[in-house]
Amino acid sequence: MIKEPTVYINESIVRKNIRTIHKKIKQQNKQFRPHFKTHQSAVIGKWFKAENVKFCAVSSLSMAWYFAKNGWNDIMLAFPMNPALCEDYEWLASKIKLELFLSDVSVIQYFKKIINPVNIRIEINTGQNRSGLNMEDIDLIQKTISEIKKNTIHRFSGFAVHAGETYHAQDTKQIKTIHYRNMEYFQKLKLLTGNVNISYGDTPSISLMEDFQYIDELRPGNFVFYDWMQNQLGTCLRDDIAIYVKCPVVAVYPERNEAIIHGGAVHFSKESIMASDGYPVFGLVTRNSEANNTDLGYLKSLSQEHGVVKLYPGVGRNLKAGDTVSVIPVHSCLVADMATHYLEASSGQVIEKMKK
Amino acid sequence: MIKEPTVYINESIVRKNIRTIHKKIKQQNKQFRPHFKTHQSAVIGKWFKAENVKFCAVSSLSMAWYFAKNGWNDIMLAFPMNPALCEDYEWLASKIKLELFLSDVSVIQYFKKIINPVNIRIEINTGQNRSGLNMEDIDLIQKTISEIKKNTIHRFSGFAVHAGETYHAQDTKQIKTIHYRNMEYFQKLKLLTGNVNISYGDTPSISLMEDFQYIDELRPGNFVFYDWMQNQLGTCLRDDIAIYVKCPVVAVYPERNEAIIHGGAVHFSKESIMASDGYPVFGLVTRNSEANNTDLGYLKSLSQEHGVVKLYPGVGRNLKAGDTVSVIPVHSCLVADMATHYLEASSGQVIEKMKK
Repeated sequence: MIKEPTVYINESIVRKNIRTIHKKIKQQNKQFRPHFKTHQSAVIGKWFKAENVKFCAVSSLSMAWYFAKNGWNDIMLAFPMNPALCEDYEWLASKIKLELFLSDVSVIQYFKKIINPVNIRIEINTGQNRSGLNMEDIDLIQKTISEIKKNTIHRFSGFAVHAGETYHAQDTKQIKTIHYRNMEYFQKLKLLTGNVNISYGDTPSISLMEDFQYIDELRPGNFVFYDWMQNQLGTCLRDDIAIYVKCPVVAVYPERNEAIIHGGAVHFSKESIMASDGYPVFGLVTRNSEANNTDLGYLKSLSQEHGVVKLYPGVGRNLKAGDTVSVIPVHSCLVADMATHYLEASSGQVIEKMKK
Repeated sequence: MIKEPTVYINESIVRKNIRTIHKKIKQQNKQFRPHFKTHQSAVIGKWFKAENVKFCAVSSLSMAWYFAKNGWNDIMLAFPMNPALCEDYEWLASKIKLELFLSDVSVIQYFKKIINPVNIRIEINTGQNRSGLNMEDIDLIQKTISEIKKNTIHRFSGFAVHAGETYHAQDTKQIKTIHYRNMEYFQKLKLLTGNVNISYGDTPSISLMEDFQYIDELRPGNFVFYDWMQNQLGTCLRDDIAIYVKCPVVAVYPERNEAIIHGGAVHFSKESIMASDGYPVFGLVTRNSEANNTDLGYLKSLSQEHGVVKLYPGVGRNLKAGDTVSVIPVHSCLVADMATHYLEASSGQVIEKMKK
């Protein structure tokens, strides 16, 4: 019996997910640079090493330090270069091969403050409208390449694109449309810039698509665990989901068809997806026993520590305070980030992760 | 210059907020039991002690332990009694005066497993539809009181209500309507149960209302920091907000009127409020200098580490990568929960908080 919300990871599913995606990428002779922001664990990093993966991406300096200390010596910091961190980048670049993003042309000046060589990748915004130079602004992109090349210490290593808008796609067709739009653009970009290297992110595209012709490197992250959002997007099977959170049931209200679990916003985050009835869903709630993995309902709302479960009709009669349920989270990256550690689903062993 | 998202707390505003609410409660001869889930800090606990506050509420066992170790000896665990924690409750009850919630009648049997005496408060659901016995079910409530009283070790201490639906109110009028509905119910409940003690939560009601006639104890939490949600609800002035998060600006896109900060879902949570244009807002973005506290725009979306700022017209020209902005968060409790510590706004000193 667990006492509090506890994050479980199924090692064999994680290893299978790594192998599946790695195989797909290898078959096309592309480079695999998994994004480690999802798991933030040196132990899981070793499962990648066992598959002969040598590169990784991270989303913060502290993650870069953590994986550098754990034997990763070729790390992409897939986040806009932060001028406040020049000294930290310099120190890190003395230890490992470090790649940084140039996502705003004005930061070029700050690279001069970094004395140890780094790779500079220009981030391009192809439609997510988060960070990166506008894809249409070819003049600015070419001018920026020239500016980077004036620096004799650092090396221009290519372009980075994150098609994060795929996470908000309505269906797999929309993901495919985004992918082909980007592929067409990459073809044009390679022609204009002399076949420059392109690194591409996002789990939905890489899980669903087969054609990566104009892409050189792939850096998905979420696929390591997947989650309910990915399943609902159609990018993974339910059996591919390697993460769940065991939670104590603390109250059941059969007359409302609802139950309360210990498991709230501080465990699941406030990330939700919209169900077909227009209401948000914060997680799928199932019985925890593997043999009897019945769906019980879904998390309809979260307070700081409370989760309110909307039970499917009739389920309330068999559930009671003192039971344990397993929740498949909507967004595994955020759940994993808030966890202090994981337990392995079969062995119960602790899987260590980065401390905050 | 800060390097990463950093949570600041203004001590003088926190102390003012404590004094204001405490004074209001004392004037009506009610008991003040602030909810410490918002700050989770023994240092801030001392600021309450300095105002002669002796009781507190928490929302998890680990918080109860933390404050017990830090000299709080009368703690309400304002969360449904969890049958998996009987041994932990027993141990804690040997150290301090502990109050637990009975939120589901079926857990009565588990109190027998706790040998050291605890106070048992029946949680009543008056409309939030989270946890608690249905307010209309007077028979069940009275039967549950009798059941609790059969136990010779523990003591029935009253009712607890959290009017959490006030956080979703459209305006202050709606908060008042909820309050008067509850007050009317409490009057009836006291008549029916022999003037039983009533503990009442939620910051909006306690900040806005003046009449707590049928309430014996008040346990707001959020008021210690307040936040942008409370300000937009109309329950606090902007000058009452004691928390902000300094974030590095890492990219500015004047053509989109947008900027990117380091500050994402792992710093702010995914909590949002709806702006008048129907789009979600994840925080208000301001210049950090106290003297030049101009509003720059709002956080329109969050990834794991990225925050996308929608800038007000014209602002983009004066903002650049390398600048720092201050974000007033939508929900201070969740921001504070994810922080490892706070910095005091004037002195820059570290304010320690509970470790995860």
